Amino acid sequence: MFGVTILGNNSALPAYDRHPTAQVVTLHEQLFLIDCGEGTQVQLARYKVKRGRINHIFISHLHGDHYFGLIGLITSMGLLGREQDLHIYGPAPLKAIIDLQLEVAATTLPFTLHFHAIEGSGLLVDHPKYSVTCFATQHRIPCYGFIIREKKKPRKILKEAAIQHGIPAVYYERLKNGDDYETRDGQIIKNEWVTFANTPGRSYAYSADTIYDPQLADITKDVTLLYHETTYLQDQSDRAAARFHSTTLQAASIARDACVKRLLIGHFSSKYEELSPFLTEACSLFPDTELALEGTTYLIL
Amino acid sequence: MFGVTILGNNSALPAYDRHPTAQVVTLHEQLFLIDCGEGTQVQLARYKVKRGRINHIFISHLHGDHYFGLIGLITSMGLLGREQDLHIYGPAPLKAIIDLQLEVAATTLPFTLHFHAIEGSGLLVDHPKYSVTCFATQHRIPCYGFIIREKKKPRKILKEAAIQHGIPAVYYERLKNGDDYETRDGQIIKNEWVTFANTPGRSYAYSADTIYDPQLADITKDVTLLYHETTYLQDQSDRAAARFHSTTLQAASIARDACVKRLLIGHFSSKYEELSPFLTEACSLFPDTELALEGTTYLIL
Repeated sequence: MFGVTILGNNSALPAYDRHPTAQVVTLHEQLFLIDCGEGTQVQLARYKVKRGRINHIFISHLHGDHYFGLIGLITSMGLLGREQDLHIYGPAPLKAIIDLQLEVAATTLPFTLHFHAIEGSGLLVDHPKYSVTCFATQHRIPCYGFIIREKKKPRKILKEAAIQHGIPAVYYERLKNGDDYETRDGQIIKNEWVTFANTPGRSYAYSADTIYDPQLADITKDVTLLYHETTYLQDQSDRAAARFHSTTLQAASIARDACVKRLLIGHFSSKYEELSPFLTEACSLFPDTELALEGTTYLIL
Repeated sequence: MFGVTILGNNSALPAYDRHPTAQVVTLHEQLFLIDCGEGTQVQLARYKVKRGRINHIFISHLHGDHYFGLIGLITSMGLLGREQDLHIYGPAPLKAIIDLQLEVAATTLPFTLHFHAIEGSGLLVDHPKYSVTCFATQHRIPCYGFIIREKKKPRKILKEAAIQHGIPAVYYERLKNGDDYETRDGQIIKNEWVTFANTPGRSYAYSADTIYDPQLADITKDVTLLYHETTYLQDQSDRAAARFHSTTLQAASIARDACVKRLLIGHFSSKYEELSPFLTEACSLFPDTELALEGTTYLIL
């Protein structure tokens, strides 16, 4: 299963029972949490997402509607006795914010929290079965989008390397599947030393908050599902630009130019109670568009 | 109207649709927010509390279940265009936490935020019509409870002082009512310079988080309504003490010894889904006890 479940689709502040931004990407058995607005831990419980299976959290930028729920989620994980490591990726100052709040509460987490500061575009996670990369977006403060790519199986064997590491041919099928190999004396031969990726698999891109930026079409070229913010309807394009946000037609044109398979739109301004005009406008330019609705899982096919 | 509306009655983390601690005290036209767990801004909206009328926020201590919703509430107030001053009272490190989060978001609030560091027991707000004092409780980190006292009207005139300030006798009724006096040349004669308080009026005490501490009975002596935490039922008294919390019978004994009129119990541990045993146990010692239920307003009569 590869899909994204929307936990919050609103910008700035909660309104009309819409929550600030958060979404969880399921890829096989892994859960990746992207952004974590206030109340995300309650939304995780409401939609029965197993927080214990979240090992990676990505925070796009430090506007509150994208991360005010993070410290509550982390401390609740601790109170619930989590033991496995947690990896958080976000702008560097986020570490000081977390540390300060743990320190004043005299809290020692029962698990190891690895903080990875994002300082530019690049590779964040490289796993034999998937990768996560980030890219900078144009917003009022430093902001990053993320692309999660499934590495297509089976992987291809680097025969010479496999022979050199003494891996028996009978094990090749497992290598193609992404497994590491353990030698008799306990040495681990990493899968990526003896295989290479097949042609690209399915992918999900989250554009975070951004002013209309045609370069995003190159960055998200050919992804399977693109989530692009549409804070405003098209008639508010001046306001959108002034606030470093995008409109429906701008998101749709990025999707069209990037030749993505499907577009998901969200991060709606609290000024709108009714969301259907967003869908109508975006579909007029890019028909394979859907509204990002809370509690809904969008499959990446 | 003098009453307290419960917005969150749970300890540690959200559970069973109970929220972390927050409550709003209404006294005449003033709203005082006491503690502000994650999701408080949503709870304020749910129970139709006008956030624009909140000018004072009191934070008991820096465990997340008592303040993680504060930064979201403050920034939302700013996004909604609040202009009037906001006063926040809490442990000193709270200021750095707020400042850091505003700074990384490049946020300038459109209103003035006055931060008042609480560093010991004493008077926080002194108004002709009410006062707010704080007292230290015994918890794992520095923690404070609050007492909001209505000053009983009419106030009594200090005749000599009133004459000395040239206040005409025809104005005495307004002085008794708490009003200041303005002289012909625009000088303000503060009400408290020429009057003194009548016998005590109604009062509300919030004990915050605390281990069982008999001194609290002296501190909250004769208050009209006491909110005392009951994180655990009586059979968990060892666990309560180890975690610097209180049980039902401990809260009830404070209420009894303080001769309060009514006791409100809350801050329930997430281990309990059913709350009625809390009421049964506390009432066995102090019958005028009520459960602090979210969305309910308890009048202070």
